[in-house]
Amino acid sequence: MRLGNRSPAFAGILALLTLSGCATVPASTPRAAPATAAATTVPPAMQWLFGSGEGGTASLQAYRALRDHVLRSARARPADSVVLAEGSTLASPRFVPCARKPLAVMLDVDETAIQNLGYEYDEAVRGRSFDSAAWNRWERTGERSVAPMPGAVEALRAIRAAGIEVIFNSNRQAANAAHTEAALDFAGLGPARHGETLFLQGDIAPGSGKDPRRAAVAGRWCVIAMAGDQLGDFSDLFNARTLPVGERRRAAVEGPFAGLWGNGWFMLSNPVYGPGLRGGFDDIFPQDRRWSDPGERE
Amino acid sequence: MRLGNRSPAFAGILALLTLSGCATVPASTPRAAPATAAATTVPPAMQWLFGSGEGGTASLQAYRALRDHVLRSARARPADSVVLAEGSTLASPRFVPCARKPLAVMLDVDETAIQNLGYEYDEAVRGRSFDSAAWNRWERTGERSVAPMPGAVEALRAIRAAGIEVIFNSNRQAANAAHTEAALDFAGLGPARHGETLFLQGDIAPGSGKDPRRAAVAGRWCVIAMAGDQLGDFSDLFNARTLPVGERRRAAVEGPFAGLWGNGWFMLSNPVYGPGLRGGFDDIFPQDRRWSDPGERE
Repeated sequence: MRLGNRSPAFAGILALLTLSGCATVPASTPRAAPATAAATTVPPAMQWLFGSGEGGTASLQAYRALRDHVLRSARARPADSVVLAEGSTLASPRFVPCARKPLAVMLDVDETAIQNLGYEYDEAVRGRSFDSAAWNRWERTGERSVAPMPGAVEALRAIRAAGIEVIFNSNRQAANAAHTEAALDFAGLGPARHGETLFLQGDIAPGSGKDPRRAAVAGRWCVIAMAGDQLGDFSDLFNARTLPVGERRRAAVEGPFAGLWGNGWFMLSNPVYGPGLRGGFDDIFPQDRRWSDPGERE
Repeated sequence: MRLGNRSPAFAGILALLTLSGCATVPASTPRAAPATAAATTVPPAMQWLFGSGEGGTASLQAYRALRDHVLRSARARPADSVVLAEGSTLASPRFVPCARKPLAVMLDVDETAIQNLGYEYDEAVRGRSFDSAAWNRWERTGERSVAPMPGAVEALRAIRAAGIEVIFNSNRQAANAAHTEAALDFAGLGPARHGETLFLQGDIAPGSGKDPRRAAVAGRWCVIAMAGDQLGDFSDLFNARTLPVGERRRAAVEGPFAGLWGNGWFMLSNPVYGPGLRGGFDDIFPQDRRWSDPGERE
C-alpha cells in the first residue's frame, strides 16, 4: 500500500512526519534538486528492503507462509473468510461467511506484490519525500521499472494452479488501471483485470479506505487469505485517526487478531513508508524500559 | 544479533556506514550530547520495529511459523539438522546429520528474541550511533529494560512444552553471561544457562563468527530450526567481506537456501541495524529498473 494516496489533511501530516524523520530525506541533499547518485546515500530502510538478504528473505518467508496456508485452507474449505464483516470493531471482530462462494486471496500491490524500485530510486536520488503528483506520474509511466517482491511470483503461481483466484486491492488510482495491470504483468504477477481481479482507488466507493472494496470482493468470493505491508490492508479500523501509536500496535498484536497473523493475514515488512513510521519517544519507548548509559566508571 | 560486536576494522567501516545513513544519527542532534527526548525525533526504523503494528505483527507471524514448523518437524524427526556442515559453500551447502541427538532450536538474542528498548532509546535520544563500549555497559546493566519480541514468549513456551530444547547463540560477551541470562529471564524467554543453552562471544572460539558455536551445538543436538535477524545468524558464509551487496541478497534469496526460509530458517525483520544496511545506489537499484520523474507536462 502506498500511504500518500490519502486525504489531503492526512497527506499534510505525512509530509511533516516524513520531514521529521530522515529515512527519505537525507539532510545533506537539497530537496527536489537534480542530485547525482554519487552525491547522496541510499536511506537505510531502502537498503534493508530492496537490497539486503535480510529484507529479501523476510519477504520469501512471508510468501511461503501465505502459499502453505492458502493451499491448506483451500482443502479444509473454511466457513468464514478472513475479511471483517460490517459492524466489526477492533475489540469484537466478525468475519464475512464463505457460504458457497469460490476461493480467492486478496493482496495489496505496492511493496506487497511489487517493489517500486523506479519510484523509490527517483525519490531517494532527489532527496525528496513522498509526492503524490510524482507518484501519479509513476503509476502512469513506471510499469517497466518494478520487480516482484521475493517469493511472490512462485506463491501466486502455486495459488492460481490450485484453482484459487488472486485479487488485488490497491490505493493506486482507478484512472491508471491499465498501467497497474501492465506493472503486475511485467513483474510476473498478472493477469489482473480491473473490476474483476484488480480494485483501485475510485472503485466501489470514493477515498483511500479499502473496506468498501474488501466488502465487495468478500460478497462474491470466499477470501481465505489477505496480504499487505500496512495494517490498512487488512482493516480500515487500524487507520482510525484517534488511535494512538501504542494502542494501534496492541490492537494488532495482542487483540483478537493475534492468532490471524501468518494464519490468514500475512504482513510483508516495509520500513520505508507508511503509517507505522509514526510516534515520538513516549509512543515508542515505554517509561519502564528506558536506560541511560552510565558511562565509563574508571 | 548486534552488529557492532565484530572486529575493530569492521566496526570502523560500520561507524562510517552508520554516519552516512541517518537512521540512527538525526543530523540536527549533537552526537553524545545529553539531548532531551523532546529535542529530537525517533528514527523511522525504530518507529517501525518497536512501535508499529506492522513491525509487531511481522514478528508475531515469524514466531508462529517457527513454532508450527518446529512442532511439525519434531514429529517427522528429520535426518539432517538445519546447521551447515563444515566445508559448505553458498553454492553447495551440506547439513550436519541429526543421528540420534536430542531436538533443539537455536536463536539469536538481540532483536530476535528480545527488543533492546533501553539501549535503543538511549542511542536515539543521544543521537548517537552504535558504540561498542556503551553496548558493553548495556549488557551489564540493562537486563530489566528489555521486552520480548512479539510472539517469542508463546512460541518458546510451546517448543519447550514439546520437549525441545531452546538454545541461544549471541554475540554478547561471555564475560557478561549472567546478565544476559537475567535479561532473557526478565523478558520471559528463559531459562538460558551459559555453556549449556546459551553461547556467547568468547565461547568455543574467539571472535564474532557464530559458526564455531553452531558447530558445537549441532554436534550435541539435532537443530531443527534457527531464528535470527541477520544472515550471520544462519551462516558466517553470508558475512564474507568480499561478497557484494547484490550477490549477498541473491545468495540468500535465490540460491540453494531459498527453500529454507520459513522452513527451518526464520528471519525476524530488523531495519534498525546490521550488515543489511549497506550499499550505494548501484547496489540497491538495478540500472534497468530506474525511473526519472518526467515532471508535469502542462
